Amino acid sequence: MPSTLINRRDLAFQLYEVLGIEALTRRPRYAEHGRDTFEAVIDTAEAIAERHFAPHNAELDRNEPTFDGERVHIIPEVGEALRHYIEAGFMAAGHDEAAGGMQLPYVVTQACAAFFQAANISTAAYPFLTGAAANLLDAFGSPQQKERYMTPMLEGRYFGTMALSEPQAGSSLSDIRTRAEPQDDGTYRLFGNKMWISGGEHDLSENIVHLVLAKIPGGPAGVKGISLFIVPKYLVNDDGTRGPRNDVRLAGLNHKMGYRGTTNTLLNFGEEDGALGYLVGEPHQGLRCMFHMMNEARIGVGLGAVMLGYAGYLYSLEYARTRPQGRHPGDKDPSTPQVRLIEHADIRRMLLAQKAAVEGGLGLCLLSARLVDDKATAEDPAEREAAATLLEILTPIAKAWPSQYCLEANGHAIQILGGYGYTRDYPVEQYYRDNRLNPIHEGTNGIQAIDLLGRKVTMQGGAAYHLLLERINATVDAAAEHTELAEYAEGLAAAGRRLVETTRVLTSAAAEGKVALSLANATHYLDLLGHIVIAWIWLDQAIAALRGLEAAQGTERDFYLGKLRTCRYFFRFELPRTAAWATLLGKLDDTTLGMPEAGF
Amino acid sequence: MPSTLINRRDLAFQLYEVLGIEALTRRPRYAEHGRDTFEAVIDTAEAIAERHFAPHNAELDRNEPTFDGERVHIIPEVGEALRHYIEAGFMAAGHDEAAGGMQLPYVVTQACAAFFQAANISTAAYPFLTGAAANLLDAFGSPQQKERYMTPMLEGRYFGTMALSEPQAGSSLSDIRTRAEPQDDGTYRLFGNKMWISGGEHDLSENIVHLVLAKIPGGPAGVKGISLFIVPKYLVNDDGTRGPRNDVRLAGLNHKMGYRGTTNTLLNFGEEDGALGYLVGEPHQGLRCMFHMMNEARIGVGLGAVMLGYAGYLYSLEYARTRPQGRHPGDKDPSTPQVRLIEHADIRRMLLAQKAAVEGGLGLCLLSARLVDDKATAEDPAEREAAATLLEILTPIAKAWPSQYCLEANGHAIQILGGYGYTRDYPVEQYYRDNRLNPIHEGTNGIQAIDLLGRKVTMQGGAAYHLLLERINATVDAAAEHTELAEYAEGLAAAGRRLVETTRVLTSAAAEGKVALSLANATHYLDLLGHIVIAWIWLDQAIAALRGLEAAQGTERDFYLGKLRTCRYFFRFELPRTAAWATLLGKLDDTTLGMPEAGF
Repeated sequence: MPSTLINRRDLAFQLYEVLGIEALTRRPRYAEHGRDTFEAVIDTAEAIAERHFAPHNAELDRNEPTFDGERVHIIPEVGEALRHYIEAGFMAAGHDEAAGGMQLPYVVTQACAAFFQAANISTAAYPFLTGAAANLLDAFGSPQQKERYMTPMLEGRYFGTMALSEPQAGSSLSDIRTRAEPQDDGTYRLFGNKMWISGGEHDLSENIVHLVLAKIPGGPAGVKGISLFIVPKYLVNDDGTRGPRNDVRLAGLNHKMGYRGTTNTLLNFGEEDGALGYLVGEPHQGLRCMFHMMNEARIGVGLGAVMLGYAGYLYSLEYARTRPQGRHPGDKDPSTPQVRLIEHADIRRMLLAQKAAVEGGLGLCLLSARLVDDKATAEDPAEREAAATLLEILTPIAKAWPSQYCLEANGHAIQILGGYGYTRDYPVEQYYRDNRLNPIHEGTNGIQAIDLLGRKVTMQGGAAYHLLLERINATVDAAAEHTELAEYAEGLAAAGRRLVETTRVLTSAAAEGKVALSLANATHYLDLLGHIVIAWIWLDQAIAALRGLEAAQGTERDFYLGKLRTCRYFFRFELPRTAAWATLLGKLDDTTLGMPEAGF
Repeated sequence: MPSTLINRRDLAFQLYEVLGIEALTRRPRYAEHGRDTFEAVIDTAEAIAERHFAPHNAELDRNEPTFDGERVHIIPEVGEALRHYIEAGFMAAGHDEAAGGMQLPYVVTQACAAFFQAANISTAAYPFLTGAAANLLDAFGSPQQKERYMTPMLEGRYFGTMALSEPQAGSSLSDIRTRAEPQDDGTYRLFGNKMWISGGEHDLSENIVHLVLAKIPGGPAGVKGISLFIVPKYLVNDDGTRGPRNDVRLAGLNHKMGYRGTTNTLLNFGEEDGALGYLVGEPHQGLRCMFHMMNEARIGVGLGAVMLGYAGYLYSLEYARTRPQGRHPGDKDPSTPQVRLIEHADIRRMLLAQKAAVEGGLGLCLLSARLVDDKATAEDPAEREAAATLLEILTPIAKAWPSQYCLEANGHAIQILGGYGYTRDYPVEQYYRDNRLNPIHEGTNGIQAIDLLGRKVTMQGGAAYHLLLERINATVDAAAEHTELAEYAEGLAAAGRRLVETTRVLTSAAAEGKVALSLANATHYLDLLGHIVIAWIWLDQAIAALRGLEAAQGTERDFYLGKLRTCRYFFRFELPRTAAWATLLGKLDDTTLGMPEAGF
């Protein structure tokens, strides 16, 4: 039976034939690994995801966590699934063997994560948040903080959160008001309210380690005065046993359209004496610490969006292959049997649109994950530097593009199932609801667009932007050597030229002080560059597919032909949209700015 | 306080300044009416919608109808709202005064309908379905059928349904299996299962009149053998009193993502002796009868999509006007107060996108409604004929365009509210879920696309298509006389030329027998023509706005400037998409057809 979560053949193609991750095993850190160990851990992820995560996905949606004023109740299947996840070692999969981890490349842990996200994104969120918090402590915590808070997280005994937003400050962190009063013993007492904190309260773990952004009175205004604190739900005694409850209280759960199984909380810090907190790193360096993890968090959101799209794609594909409905155009004979949905052109279009989005999005997220590895472990320092630079400009795209276009893919999945797709008896409507969160959290897509055009394109004298162009042009040159791909090489080259001209106009305007005008249509710049990046990803996949096709037989041949045809779909149906975006951007259009407010 | 349902200024602009509906009062049927009576009935609709429909919209979503095996339970607010609706005379608003109606033009009844849809689309669906059923009986029922079934519907005592689909035949009506066995007394006994029947069971009315498509054994195969029957839930005695229960049973309720308050049912006909049914019109003419009502039903779906979008637009607009968040680009001073959301360019873009979609969509739906009036009551038979012809080609667009783009508008509304928009504490997520039904029912948007390109464009030798082009060109010519609108006149003219060339290629291919190839990208033809039609609607609004602007002062001036700026938004941000669609279509692209099935 084919997987309902990811097409394993596609995943293997992307990991080994496109990204060539076997080469990672030549690096000292991964020397014990090989394709066999990668595949074994992916097998385990798939098995646990299918057996323990997927079965309660709809049940958890129907029975979201509740708060009785004392505790939060979550259906027991969540805890059971997480026990299997922890016991299999996934919580520490990327960490050192010495710390009890598997020392796996990040790209492999992300390939594993993909199965859990496809199976049940709400249950998967708890360990993913914990992993992000543990990584942050790994990078910035003191040895004692690591031992006391990170190690139990890697063991799966403690879970973690990232507590940034406040009711009055969602996208605008410089306006947070939570304050941390220094105490004589070097600790802090925190007072304030945090909003949208995922995993902020539950009984799934012995303890919850909140990583909280707050301001130390007297520090600089704005983001330069933000510090990072460990605030545990239960204080931890010196011997590591659990102490009394800290002054952190659940003020309420948010009730969401989707993603319902992950508790999302409003937390009050310091209703009484102040919540005891421990400074991580230096004072006023909190945002820098938090953003250290932001690339990975944002790639994680992108991958989640991809996988919800992927699960919907596979479900609607199977439905289209089996459900009879209607006849071919021109066949007016009602005595002939109905044909299957997949034989209709418009259904095939919606399947191709989904395949292009989810397999293209997966390619971008896996490439980004591979860059995280290269940044950390490439032997050549210049390669590490290049990976870090490229990652900076790809991150906002890896977050925003899938969260827009793989959500659209979920809409296509519903449409293929027709009325059935709109009912809660089929999983596709839940994927669509769950996925709608992704354009919002970890920085809205509008914020990503401003980050991309306002910061990443110009950073280091445009280094990231030029490196990306270089990589795209290298793919164009490689593709141009194959007559089968010449059309796409030309298409991407033309889109690249439009990008260069558009970027020149926009950055010149900003340099002349017209910042607001330059950024006014940033969202469409993200659309433009996003589509170009996904076209690049597809062209790389097409090159690999052509290579694979040479010796392929039977279903292998169909697999590669399917890849080539999907590349064609993206280049013919999607890439041409870049022309309209480039034209609009290149004219520094001020339509939005000039709208009179009273004219809305 | 401004209306939360529709901007009344916009509605008045569209009805009187663009469509000039006061001219309808010169026709004998509407001679008793004037702008004052139109406005009075619209006031009543607004008041009832706000007081009795809107307040239970969220409550009904949270507490959807349930079936205990015996009866369906619906929260009592639904019945109360409908009593107010019926008592105010809306059930018969368009019908003859002699029949107890208000003899209002269709365009005015649709303007009223818009308020109920914006306030609570689920509750509004019950009377709208009843109205459609009553109209069908008005057109095709015998005098006795009208008296027995239609009159109680106009009085609001009986409700109605349209029972077309079956579990195995959704989009493909030729494959329905419900059979109607003729009896010696001229009645029929029906046996079969009907799926997706909205309003199929409830206790809101004394009786439910199901209008059922079924096949009389021995008739032609396919759609030519479909007949239409009245099948009441309770038989009606000769004196009009309610008789015994008919052999129609609720097999189950469908549980939907949204639109939850309208019961959607699987009905079994003839579990015992057969459900007693009465033939409407001639045998085997059922589909023709049903399609007589289809234009209006589809415009109604389009209007519902518009109004869900409109309600979300107004809500997110008010939110953006009051919520502070962040600062302008370039303002790095955190000590300045936060600016309101509406001051950010990207928020303005999302507001303009919504305004363009919902006010453009409303324009198209109201124009279509006006054409329904012209078809029925224009004094010149040629004008009646022209209205009927134009309506044929506009209907698939009026159904599909809003159900795609006003759903996208709902996505923008969520995005403007950020995390709050994703919670069930705010109404925008419900609008988004409710609206997701509209691309599916009354013929999926894929079906609309095939209807448009495969039938409407070529019908009567292309008469509808050429008439539409003529009307569009007339607007282009009128706009070209205003320098302020010259850019748009040129833009629409250019898009029109692309449309003509594309259509020529596609219809030629079909004429040469390449039907599948011609229709392969029909959805993008609908996108292409849809965007051109909405641009035409906006250009007509811009002409009227320029006219209004001449003498306008203060807020009136802002209103007209807002219209002009939104027109500009549509022409600069949306209309350019037509180029890519036209190019793809003009090449008869076969990407979808050539995808190997095993390659998915």
